[in-house]
Amino acid sequence: MPLKQSRRGLIPPFIVMDVMRAANERAAAGKEVLHLEVGQPGTPAPAAVRNAAARALDADKIGYTDAFGIPELRRRIAGHYRDAYGLDLDPRRVVVTTGSSAGFLLSFLAAFDAGDRVALAAPGYPAYRNILSALGVEPVLLPSEAGDRFQPTPALLEQAGGNLQGLIVASPSNPTGTMLDAPHLRALMKCCAAQDIRVISDEIYHGISFGKRAVSALEFSDDAVVINSFSKYFSMTGWRLGWMILPEDLLRPVECLAQNLFISAPTLSQIAGCAAFDCKEDLDALVDGYARSRALLLDRLPKAGLDKLAPADGAFYIYADVGRYTNDSQEFCARMLAEIGVAATPGIDFDPERGHRFVRFSFAGAYDEIETAAERIGNWLA
Amino acid sequence: MPLKQSRRGLIPPFIVMDVMRAANERAAAGKEVLHLEVGQPGTPAPAAVRNAAARALDADKIGYTDAFGIPELRRRIAGHYRDAYGLDLDPRRVVVTTGSSAGFLLSFLAAFDAGDRVALAAPGYPAYRNILSALGVEPVLLPSEAGDRFQPTPALLEQAGGNLQGLIVASPSNPTGTMLDAPHLRALMKCCAAQDIRVISDEIYHGISFGKRAVSALEFSDDAVVINSFSKYFSMTGWRLGWMILPEDLLRPVECLAQNLFISAPTLSQIAGCAAFDCKEDLDALVDGYARSRALLLDRLPKAGLDKLAPADGAFYIYADVGRYTNDSQEFCARMLAEIGVAATPGIDFDPERGHRFVRFSFAGAYDEIETAAERIGNWLA
Repeated sequence: MPLKQSRRGLIPPFIVMDVMRAANERAAAGKEVLHLEVGQPGTPAPAAVRNAAARALDADKIGYTDAFGIPELRRRIAGHYRDAYGLDLDPRRVVVTTGSSAGFLLSFLAAFDAGDRVALAAPGYPAYRNILSALGVEPVLLPSEAGDRFQPTPALLEQAGGNLQGLIVASPSNPTGTMLDAPHLRALMKCCAAQDIRVISDEIYHGISFGKRAVSALEFSDDAVVINSFSKYFSMTGWRLGWMILPEDLLRPVECLAQNLFISAPTLSQIAGCAAFDCKEDLDALVDGYARSRALLLDRLPKAGLDKLAPADGAFYIYADVGRYTNDSQEFCARMLAEIGVAATPGIDFDPERGHRFVRFSFAGAYDEIETAAERIGNWLA
Repeated sequence: MPLKQSRRGLIPPFIVMDVMRAANERAAAGKEVLHLEVGQPGTPAPAAVRNAAARALDADKIGYTDAFGIPELRRRIAGHYRDAYGLDLDPRRVVVTTGSSAGFLLSFLAAFDAGDRVALAAPGYPAYRNILSALGVEPVLLPSEAGDRFQPTPALLEQAGGNLQGLIVASPSNPTGTMLDAPHLRALMKCCAAQDIRVISDEIYHGISFGKRAVSALEFSDDAVVINSFSKYFSMTGWRLGWMILPEDLLRPVECLAQNLFISAPTLSQIAGCAAFDCKEDLDALVDGYARSRALLLDRLPKAGLDKLAPADGAFYIYADVGRYTNDSQEFCARMLAEIGVAATPGIDFDPERGHRFVRFSFAGAYDEIETAAERIGNWLA
């Protein structure tokens, strides 16, 4: 008999990573690739962060840290809530994690048992539902509408049929870039509080928004779990560094889980991450760059025939309805990569039901690359 | 009603981390602490590793990598099996992980469903059973005996009552340092194969042994999951870098899980880790240092009255029976820290049933510190 494999291990791939691999293979074969698939800045970490890492390489042993992270970084993160949101936050509630990925895993494990039901918008970040599934939690997909900025609403929660233990919100959202403004987020959280639904707020794109600033769930409740990351605004993807703000009741369970499952987040990243909060000027300049690329795509894509676009309030994504051209966005993306060297991510990664007619374009990369891609897409669709 | 917490999140702490915190608090209060509690080298990564990291800080964007890691590191790891074990290994089967911690989580998730039963020796690394519990898998503790080097045996498997889906072996073991030699490991794996029990072999202390070299499960079967790490022999704990060698059938499930749960291991650590395989001379010198410290403790502890010690074949631990002095090793360790500033880890972290009469002493730290500690322990027990 073959050895056992688990059923729960059979979750779908994170398709964007398969797309990245296909794109990298094409590039390795010497062909050009324009990277509009990947959800990461085209820039390295700010110089001050890299310098801090270089210093630590000489001065620090780079050993394990406390499971919740080094005290200085926890203090700096707490200070960030004062600076960016005007919130007074006890550093005790700050948990440094190995990217936001670890934050999802730890908070889902600490808050939900197998068999629980957790709601989340579709389209949404695929790892939410895939991690939930791997942990035996039932992801309850809320079919969010363009008219509601593809965000969850009290009505969608209602339609989900009750008996929900959690709701994941993401504002700005991946893949849509849309945000929940303060009144909508407040109303949604009130609705959750009335039904004892724990809110997990993915705020990893905070800092990257175009017009209004993103609102934190912490502005309305100390019961929410807030998840954030150094990967996006701070331009530190490969450093695998993130954080959570936890409600008091989850602190000890998450600490025990983190000790056992992770030991601690990468130490060099933690030390260097402290410097990230001194780099506001550099980082805001990156956001200015995203704004330029966003404006370009919002101008060019409609001219190319892609005129049904989600409002890109924040993050670095445009979620485009390509239903005029295809009913199979995966095939569409494969062809686009093969024929014009433009990599983008099919919507089915984000919405198993309706994503077959959507494509996510990332504008996190270099402006010139995005401009060339837009031109090629225009010619290709014409 | 309060918001829901999961039952499965309520796993025990990893007690050594609580001990570390107590020790660090004592040190922060200006008091001396001799660190015999912590399972990490007292040394930084080899210079070549740190230099490679420094170069990458300048030259590389430090972005995400493939979920399985950068190709060069996977090739270097495969090469390590040729150099150290004489095994020919396809780099496709090498999975770079965020420390061995991620290897445990990913392999447990991919191989076992909730309700499955997985056997492991007690005493053993506490995170095994705590991660299994968090994932709903039942850890079946095998009460291993000093006479069997505290290792699992076919007889203990038999006594576990059948219906086992997995067995975790660790050689050298944490906390005992004991090894399974080739005949014993072969016999155990044969017994598992006959019962379709998947073997997960924790080999993170390979390279650190005193006398015989440690034997890999890969020498007997390609069906085993092998987990290893850069933390111990390679002296890179805080870099959070490890690897797995997977059987073919688990490659795709683990890839999907890794994409969703981790994205990728820390990039700087991956790049720098390639250089670790060029540092054999430096690293073997560290092992010589451990050997000196081990010899010191094996001489001094018996003179101090602690004469029932597990054979420290490898790793950097001595597991001592302190039953002559106490029936509560946690209290014993707390008192030892408070009264003579020596931190060590109570056995209950490793063996909930019988650990109350054992203490783990780590000799991974500086020789002088260990010598001073040995002297103080002698005076204290006298």
